[in-house]
Amino acid sequence: MFTAKVKALLGTELPIIQAPMAGVQDANLAIAVSKAGGLGSIPCGMLGIEAIVSDIIKVKAATTEPYNLNFFCHQMPDYNQAQHDVWQNTLAKYFIELGISCENGPNSANRMPFNHDIADAIEAFKPEFISFHFGLPEQKLFDRIKSWGTKVVSSATTLEEALWLEAKGVDAIIAQGIEAGGHRGMFLTDDITTQVGSMALISQIVKKVDIPIIAAGGIADAQGVKASLLMGAGAVQIGTAYLLCDEANTSALHRLALKSEKASHTALTNLFSGKPARGIVNRIMNELGCMSALAPSFPHAAIEITQLRQYAEKQGLDGFSPLWSGQNTSGCLDISAKEMTKLLVSQLE
Amino acid sequence: MFTAKVKALLGTELPIIQAPMAGVQDANLAIAVSKAGGLGSIPCGMLGIEAIVSDIIKVKAATTEPYNLNFFCHQMPDYNQAQHDVWQNTLAKYFIELGISCENGPNSANRMPFNHDIADAIEAFKPEFISFHFGLPEQKLFDRIKSWGTKVVSSATTLEEALWLEAKGVDAIIAQGIEAGGHRGMFLTDDITTQVGSMALISQIVKKVDIPIIAAGGIADAQGVKASLLMGAGAVQIGTAYLLCDEANTSALHRLALKSEKASHTALTNLFSGKPARGIVNRIMNELGCMSALAPSFPHAAIEITQLRQYAEKQGLDGFSPLWSGQNTSGCLDISAKEMTKLLVSQLE
Repeated sequence: MFTAKVKALLGTELPIIQAPMAGVQDANLAIAVSKAGGLGSIPCGMLGIEAIVSDIIKVKAATTEPYNLNFFCHQMPDYNQAQHDVWQNTLAKYFIELGISCENGPNSANRMPFNHDIADAIEAFKPEFISFHFGLPEQKLFDRIKSWGTKVVSSATTLEEALWLEAKGVDAIIAQGIEAGGHRGMFLTDDITTQVGSMALISQIVKKVDIPIIAAGGIADAQGVKASLLMGAGAVQIGTAYLLCDEANTSALHRLALKSEKASHTALTNLFSGKPARGIVNRIMNELGCMSALAPSFPHAAIEITQLRQYAEKQGLDGFSPLWSGQNTSGCLDISAKEMTKLLVSQLE
Repeated sequence: MFTAKVKALLGTELPIIQAPMAGVQDANLAIAVSKAGGLGSIPCGMLGIEAIVSDIIKVKAATTEPYNLNFFCHQMPDYNQAQHDVWQNTLAKYFIELGISCENGPNSANRMPFNHDIADAIEAFKPEFISFHFGLPEQKLFDRIKSWGTKVVSSATTLEEALWLEAKGVDAIIAQGIEAGGHRGMFLTDDITTQVGSMALISQIVKKVDIPIIAAGGIADAQGVKASLLMGAGAVQIGTAYLLCDEANTSALHRLALKSEKASHTALTNLFSGKPARGIVNRIMNELGCMSALAPSFPHAAIEITQLRQYAEKQGLDGFSPLWSGQNTSGCLDISAKEMTKLLVSQLE
């Protein structure tokens, strides 16, 4: 029923994009999903250029099926020591408790926005599909990618963002409902009260834009996929359901949390990076409040908390870890990504 | 396909409950929906006993079809003058600006929880269907209603609340997704970060409870209805889409807001009643913040703001009005409730 449209939209047989999930997956998950007929994604937002290229080579060696490269395109703010002084003060009790000292200073390799150096490195591969998060890169960069014949999509978290993206000329819009795990793609506002549930967001966007919609957020199973397509989405993007798959690098602590009752309470938090992202509520979110005005600007807020996290995780503690998860973990299964992909489309005729 | 199940669940032909919307509708809307084959609702939460009885008589004179009575069942806190001193201080600038003085003191008629006096008054009608908001009344009252043969349902905003309601013996659970307009039915927590989008909530609850689910929140059109049933709901409850209908009492200012671009930004706010409810963001929400720790306990927070609202509305200003709305106004139409009801089921075979 949907095959020709999906082929035109994603280049794949199945209307499934595996959501790029920086920090919990590498090319292996993308390869497994692409081989299964979905669109596997490589989250490039936290990778250096060499790692991006090596992942592309890995995917192309494993399959001729299409894949998606995902990049961040936020404005990179200067590192602001005053912000970090305040933040380090706030976190000082945790450093004392763990008995470690806080390393100071910027970490420039962390979450670079898409730029011409990256474009130079990937141009030779003429990637078929690129998704952006946090809006779009500047016009020149956007035009450059489009000139390769690459399909370009980005996330909208409101109708306003969807209309903005359509006007910029994207090929499709990922409608990222409030249920989605990880970072909100929001880029026209910082106000999280603007964020809309999938049921409302898909319905609103479908009526107002002419390009295809990819539904994301809260979709965890075959019923959710079918319902999203029925509401007018051309495809869906699914992350959380893949988190327990064999090919994901989800840590043991993260897997435990996803399988526990704790997973029923996720929240948007800016504590881990400076931008709102959805994860399972843990100790630091409970103690500092999920959204803190004191957290340094994205991505620099990660500098201090990553130190706490790395030390704590070695003791088996997840209280400082970003336990990224969407609101619906009911589809998470310890199976291969291939089996998961097949399951997700099992209600489509 | 669904007729027998719906008949058993709602007593109606169509799997549609018109959401009870206190303040913007009376028996006329309920009658129109019930006559059209859905389940019309009378919002009794803000009515005195005489008005409740008179509405029931009105419905029964107009139709033999089933109808729903909706009651609040919150804990009624004492009026706390200290809370109101703080709140009146916060609002003082608005009273000065409008040139009115603030009337002090409790207003006991406002939003009474369900009680034995109400039960005495409605018992003779043996109502077929009652929905509660904010949990359930005490066991004795619950058992009393059940002894009439009445179907009793209540709203769950989380999986935890759904499991609680099922254990208490309700006949069905309204899964109220975060998209829904008006008051959140939440009763096991005050923490709005626990609130879940419809896509996730329906999916989670359907897998864990054995009684029927009524999906609510973000459903605005035939696609949304069909998608919700496909995800496993036995029926849907829809409010926002009925707000512009001929039979609704939605004020002219409220109707204007619903048709304007402002409707694309709704938020949960406790400013109007003391409990979180979703409405279109307006002046006071912008200026005081949507959620304020200073607002008195539900329902007493309404005392002061209602005075500002009533005066401002006469000047044509909606800055102090609760412009209740869900996140999806894309299905709102100036048509009769009968036409709306038929539209909503137009994709069901």
